[in-house]
Amino acid sequence: MSKTISINAGSSSLKWQLYEMPAEKVLAKGIIERIGLNDSISTVKYDGKSDSQTLDIADHTQAVKLLLDDLQKHGIIKDFAEITGVGHRVVAGGEYFKESCLIGDVEIDKIEALSALAPLHNPAHVAGIRAFKELLPDITSVAVFDTAFHASMPEVSYRYPLPTKYYEEYQARKYGAHGTSHQYVANEAAKVLGKPLEELKLITAHIGNGVSLTAIKDGKCLDTSMGFTPLAGPMMGTRSGDIDPALIPYLIEKDPDVKDAADLINVLNKQSGLLGVSETSSDMREIQDGKAKGDPKASLAFDMFVNRLQRFIGQYVAELNGLDALVFTAGIGENSAEIREAVVSGLSWFGMLLDPAKNVFGAEGDISKDGAAVRVLVIPTDEELVIARDVERLKKV
Amino acid sequence: MSKTISINAGSSSLKWQLYEMPAEKVLAKGIIERIGLNDSISTVKYDGKSDSQTLDIADHTQAVKLLLDDLQKHGIIKDFAEITGVGHRVVAGGEYFKESCLIGDVEIDKIEALSALAPLHNPAHVAGIRAFKELLPDITSVAVFDTAFHASMPEVSYRYPLPTKYYEEYQARKYGAHGTSHQYVANEAAKVLGKPLEELKLITAHIGNGVSLTAIKDGKCLDTSMGFTPLAGPMMGTRSGDIDPALIPYLIEKDPDVKDAADLINVLNKQSGLLGVSETSSDMREIQDGKAKGDPKASLAFDMFVNRLQRFIGQYVAELNGLDALVFTAGIGENSAEIREAVVSGLSWFGMLLDPAKNVFGAEGDISKDGAAVRVLVIPTDEELVIARDVERLKKV
Repeated sequence: MSKTISINAGSSSLKWQLYEMPAEKVLAKGIIERIGLNDSISTVKYDGKSDSQTLDIADHTQAVKLLLDDLQKHGIIKDFAEITGVGHRVVAGGEYFKESCLIGDVEIDKIEALSALAPLHNPAHVAGIRAFKELLPDITSVAVFDTAFHASMPEVSYRYPLPTKYYEEYQARKYGAHGTSHQYVANEAAKVLGKPLEELKLITAHIGNGVSLTAIKDGKCLDTSMGFTPLAGPMMGTRSGDIDPALIPYLIEKDPDVKDAADLINVLNKQSGLLGVSETSSDMREIQDGKAKGDPKASLAFDMFVNRLQRFIGQYVAELNGLDALVFTAGIGENSAEIREAVVSGLSWFGMLLDPAKNVFGAEGDISKDGAAVRVLVIPTDEELVIARDVERLKKV
Repeated sequence: MSKTISINAGSSSLKWQLYEMPAEKVLAKGIIERIGLNDSISTVKYDGKSDSQTLDIADHTQAVKLLLDDLQKHGIIKDFAEITGVGHRVVAGGEYFKESCLIGDVEIDKIEALSALAPLHNPAHVAGIRAFKELLPDITSVAVFDTAFHASMPEVSYRYPLPTKYYEEYQARKYGAHGTSHQYVANEAAKVLGKPLEELKLITAHIGNGVSLTAIKDGKCLDTSMGFTPLAGPMMGTRSGDIDPALIPYLIEKDPDVKDAADLINVLNKQSGLLGVSETSSDMREIQDGKAKGDPKASLAFDMFVNRLQRFIGQYVAELNGLDALVFTAGIGENSAEIREAVVSGLSWFGMLLDPAKNVFGAEGDISKDGAAVRVLVIPTDEELVIARDVERLKKV
């Protein structure tokens, strides 16, 4: 028995989860926020208890040090040596990383070099990786890439209809995201359906604050809705998803608060989506409340959100030329029966039909009516577990 | 009996077609090119004959004067008074023009004011309209808008997931294009199918150098693929269609030949699509030749073009929640049996199946196998005729 920690390092945060492996038992989890700012907060949850402390944490190394000390302090581990592996989530693996891998110096340099593809994320991942290397130099260190599951996409899916040099010289192509989540729920869906994943045509819909859909065929990603960056695809909490690209110079000229394309992309990332249309919230629960109270902007935001999901589902049914099951996952996908009902009720022609008795809050597994030709599933995602499993799998023997 | 002329004025060109109405007989047609440049060319076709002349034409008024003189010179008309109506194609009608209308001063000002939505087209249309008003001040003058058929789109389709002020203050919404073509072929398709248009769910695919698809339900446009501008939608001859908007600041930074968003949109409009991927041609016939000869870039361009059409068809099947028929029209849609075969063979799950004996060059009407659940049609478009009909309909009595 050994302990493995899953790490998701952001620019000013570090989310972690400690597992007993291979039992896959969660021993503790937590998050350190406001790293590098004043009044950083560290929260640890274990054994039904929760402990928070506020202090100043200068950088990721100090954050990792605090986290390890906390594990000892709360008696979750006695000795650092109990931790034998760490897995790091990495947003952008580019075309170089096609699967999870052990992290050496070459890999750190490469992850850093790929920062152009995820300027907010990859530098933070590298900081997290280096902090663990410094404090626990001898444990197995593994990188798990958000893009890896999408590496199997065919060229017809991942290339953009742009001048070829934009791909060949500047790596402008679709990379996708949420790959770990799509892969996990696809595997779980195959178990529920009782068939090998390789024999299924699936659409996995990861619907959280970020939204991405993936078409899966022969056990591999055929297409996915996030693109060169996670801005692409359907409407999201604060992100616009796809729009007519020609709107960009037009809006730069019109909006006095926006001076260039980078500025406008910031608006598309942070002030659009549910928030932009509703003008009240990026949170689907609040949008549903507003809709229930008759707020027309919240209703429009809800309807557009549903419509954009339906557009992508239809697109992927076409690309797959068929469908065995649609899988809902992530915050909204797992918890909003209202969204699932709205999406699926408009797709009855495809052979999807929900069972209202099964499509309830807390639903898991198959929520379709008996006899519906295409199944609809709810599968809670678990990216941390995939990371821990990959560490276990790649552990030096 | 009276004569009506359909006009399509571009920034440096003027395409025209003269009809005997209401017989809908084409008497002559032609195009004047390089207006305002040296060596302008005017071509007139009538009675199986074709006549071209090269001369300098300074502006649209001079072009219209030449055209009228040519009609007399070739004996197509004896007197200008025989022409009782003129219909002008107008690309952008904004939210103001929801149908064809008689053109007075107010309408000219409004079309001019909408130039922000079609900076290359609307000023040219206004020049064409003014030229006819000057030379034939008393005839019926009608504007037919590319956007009018799409005016019925519901808000959920035409709004973008952007901050609301971008719609309310800057009119940033989907307007669509090729509306006259979509409306015409939808009406013709209903005749072929022997049902009222109002009872059909149709997808009309206008596939020329520009490509747009429209979902039609209850006789009205439910959604369409061109957006705020004709750049949006699937891959086209030289246009990229939809891409991850975040590529724009990235490519501005990378490409030394591009200095701002407007520059890059120019690349997306003129150097992308089939041309960008194949690096040889924007013409589907040459792409098909290249593919036949084993050119991998031409093959990739072909496959991507087909894939993007399939994505939009799937999207609209979802939005329509069903489909009675898919209609191909315009240059490629009418003439390329290879494209139709490639698109439809990947969509068999929807119930589409082509009859290879019917899907041939020159095919018109229903090209599906007997018994296929969803019909596939080829309907040659005729935007000029729609314009002439609208003039006839709106003529002062």
